Amino acid sequence: MIKKFNYYQPTRIIFGVGRRKELGIWAKRFGKKVLVVVDPNVKKFLSQQYQEMLDTLKSEGIETVVFDHVIPNPTLDSIQEGAEIAKREKVEFVIGIGGGSAIDTAKAIAVAATHEGTAWDYLYFKKEPTEKTLPIIGVPTTAGTGTQTSRVSVLTNTEEKCKSAIASDNIICKVAIVDPELTLTVPPAVTASTGFDVFTHCFESYINVNNQPYVDVLALEAIKVVIEYLKKAYDNPKDLEARTKMAWADTLAGCCLANVGTTIPHALGQAIGGHFPHVSHGQSLAVVYPAFLDYTVEWAIERFAKVARMFNPELEKVSDKEAAYALKQEIVSFLKSINLYYTMEDFGIKKEDVKDLVRHAIEFPDNRVNPRVPDEKDLEELYLKSFRD
Amino acid sequence: MIKKFNYYQPTRIIFGVGRRKELGIWAKRFGKKVLVVVDPNVKKFLSQQYQEMLDTLKSEGIETVVFDHVIPNPTLDSIQEGAEIAKREKVEFVIGIGGGSAIDTAKAIAVAATHEGTAWDYLYFKKEPTEKTLPIIGVPTTAGTGTQTSRVSVLTNTEEKCKSAIASDNIICKVAIVDPELTLTVPPAVTASTGFDVFTHCFESYINVNNQPYVDVLALEAIKVVIEYLKKAYDNPKDLEARTKMAWADTLAGCCLANVGTTIPHALGQAIGGHFPHVSHGQSLAVVYPAFLDYTVEWAIERFAKVARMFNPELEKVSDKEAAYALKQEIVSFLKSINLYYTMEDFGIKKEDVKDLVRHAIEFPDNRVNPRVPDEKDLEELYLKSFRD
Ligand SMILES: NC(=O)c1ccc[n+]([C@@H]2O[C@H](COP(=O)([O-])OP(=O)(O)OC[C@H]3O[C@@H](n4cnc5c(N)ncnc54)[C@H](O)[C@@H]3O)[C@@H](O)[C@H]2O)c1
Ligand SMILES: NC(=O)c1ccc[n+]([C@@H]2O[C@H](COP(=O)([O-])OP(=O)(O)OC[C@H]3O[C@@H](n4cnc5c(N)ncnc54)[C@H](O)[C@@H]3O)[C@@H](O)[C@H]2O)c1
Ligand SMILES: [Fe+2]
Ligand SMILES: [Fe+2]
Repeated sequence: MIKKFNYYQPTRIIFGVGRRKELGIWAKRFGKKVLVVVDPNVKKFLSQQYQEMLDTLKSEGIETVVFDHVIPNPTLDSIQEGAEIAKREKVEFVIGIGGGSAIDTAKAIAVAATHEGTAWDYLYFKKEPTEKTLPIIGVPTTAGTGTQTSRVSVLTNTEEKCKSAIASDNIICKVAIVDPELTLTVPPAVTASTGFDVFTHCFESYINVNNQPYVDVLALEAIKVVIEYLKKAYDNPKDLEARTKMAWADTLAGCCLANVGTTIPHALGQAIGGHFPHVSHGQSLAVVYPAFLDYTVEWAIERFAKVARMFNPELEKVSDKEAAYALKQEIVSFLKSINLYYTMEDFGIKKEDVKDLVRHAIEFPDNRVNPRVPDEKDLEELYLKSFRD
Repeated sequence: MIKKFNYYQPTRIIFGVGRRKELGIWAKRFGKKVLVVVDPNVKKFLSQQYQEMLDTLKSEGIETVVFDHVIPNPTLDSIQEGAEIAKREKVEFVIGIGGGSAIDTAKAIAVAATHEGTAWDYLYFKKEPTEKTLPIIGVPTTAGTGTQTSRVSVLTNTEEKCKSAIASDNIICKVAIVDPELTLTVPPAVTASTGFDVFTHCFESYINVNNQPYVDVLALEAIKVVIEYLKKAYDNPKDLEARTKMAWADTLAGCCLANVGTTIPHALGQAIGGHFPHVSHGQSLAVVYPAFLDYTVEWAIERFAKVARMFNPELEKVSDKEAAYALKQEIVSFLKSINLYYTMEDFGIKKEDVKDLVRHAIEFPDNRVNPRVPDEKDLEELYLKSFRD
């Protein structure tokens, strides 16, 4: 029987090669002055495409203010800097152009520019941002975080060494312009880690105790695509078909995040990212995945089996239980194939760091929606099992 | 390669058994006074459930004005009557409770109550309704038209004997409360015709020349569900699981309509419904389907084959072409199994009527997005082939 569920995903998705050239047309309904929040690497590697986007804004009569102090794993400081500019310049909306870091910066600026206090006061467990939040347009250049369709913005408080998130319907992008050509310049290592992030958003939503039929459909579709196309995009960065498929999977994954969401790996991973900012989000997930799979498999046999068989159709021939237990090996092989298989040592993390990580990781609600709910001891073991020895 | 596409479906979907009891909670954000547009049969057959809904509105402090002059295949007259009441009573939003007829009436009232002229002035090829349109909540009691997630309202101008539609993002329901329990009282004949309508929305969106990957995923999922559950709901009206699955498929089908849409059968069918109001929407589609399939198959071999194999997995063993050609027989058997297989004579339609029907049917843009685009002569033949002899 289908469980009760809610589904809400109001973003206007504008998908396809070259759609960046429509930015101005979609933007003009939101006002005459915009803050463009752009990743500095996008300005560099995609200078022509970036200029094209600015040109479409101009030709629609939209005045632009550019903020390019976007940093990977956005910090509160950079967000506040952007928010001050947004306020001073009285922009009416924001456009985020870049990976999750740029778009999440844009989202947080949209909140901070219109509310008392700083963005950090609007974390999911504090106050919810209101409808005063500036309208946001997302133009992703990674296939990645799904932030163009999710209701989340992840930010880091450097002082508190803490990574947390704003979550609200009011920070869902009004428009997402998903132009796969913008991802052609993503280097292989970033392709791998962002692409694995797509997989985790779908997989964790699919096995989440709050899973629901709408998201199941989207998650399974996106998982299928990642299995088929991520390695192709990794091996051949200019493969436009693979990039297009990954951009599509990423967009679906954001819809999964918006309506179900992630479990243990994102709690463990965000804690790693908060303490060790040099570890990318995808790497922080990859390193804990094997231990997480071991920990959870017995509590989610059917759904693990389903995904295992998508990796390896031969597993149709074995029992659900056997297929479910085979998933770990499938994912390990997959990670190895894109050079994303790590242990904690690879990032210079020490066993002495684990206590701090656990203190941070245990706070994430993601843990409580895993089929098997961990306590602190469990999280500690999950981290420890993610060391080589 | 994935084509360019747009996707937009901003309805908040509240799905599940018993969710009707949340109507007040979701409604209160739209104001303090509402026009409830309700199907008279819903008041009769679902009197307790209807009362529960009114009670939740009351307990949230929402004043209700009830309009129950909803008629199947809603007419402009009844819509204008409702719109006058909405204006006089200064309601802030509308709730449609019933099948497609009640919700479409609510949608058209939301337009007519806030715009110059009548609802007929806002047909898709005339003026588009603006954002002044009253917010609409849809509570479907058939699994059916998908109107709770579509951007269409179908109405009939009795004088002009003409069925047409308003189509706009501004008449998309803000909230859809999809409670499968409300469909338990639908009589078998209505279950069959509305359920087949669900199939057609998905199938026609899937083979539409504007098909796109997001809608493909939703359409195929919903088709799978209809194949498995429609007959169960038809045979056993109280089968809550089958009703739940059909309500789910219907909701997905509305998302398909909102982003792709129907082809020839809906043009042919709407013309029949306009001229012969005693023919239900589902019947008007069923009667033309075999001829339409014959006409189109050669132009859509791959997609016809895919769907044929969903009806009959044995067709995996044959070529795409053979499978595609087998679809007609699969659908005819399916229609027979739910007593929905008809020829034009069954409705008292005569060959002399065809010229009038064609004149109406040719006007629908649905024709131009069919894989094979018909001219008047083709439409005439499609009608003629839908007679027994
Ligand atoms: N909001 C959400 O729903 C959500 C979900 C998951 C993760 N996140 C967060 O998003 C952030 C990560 O985002 P990300 O994974 O997209 O990485 P990112 O935005 O940090 O980008 C990674 C690197 O790639 C570069 N880059 C981006 N696009 C490029 C391009 N087209 N060509 C060349 N280089 C390019 C960036 O400059 C950066 O150095 C983290 O903070 C993570 O926690 C957010
Ligand atoms: N807006 C759209 O996207 C869209 C799409 C397709 C069709 N339509 C239109 O919708 C209308 C048809 O809607 P429909 O097929 O849902 O039929 P309907 O609303 O006309 O209802 C069919 C019959 O069933 C009765 N009924 C409804 N719910 C019941 C229940 N729970 N128990 C007992 N009886 C019940 C009604 O009183 C009516 O007699 C047509 O005008 C058609 O053209 C609209
Ligand atoms: Fe993530
Ligand atoms: Fe229909």
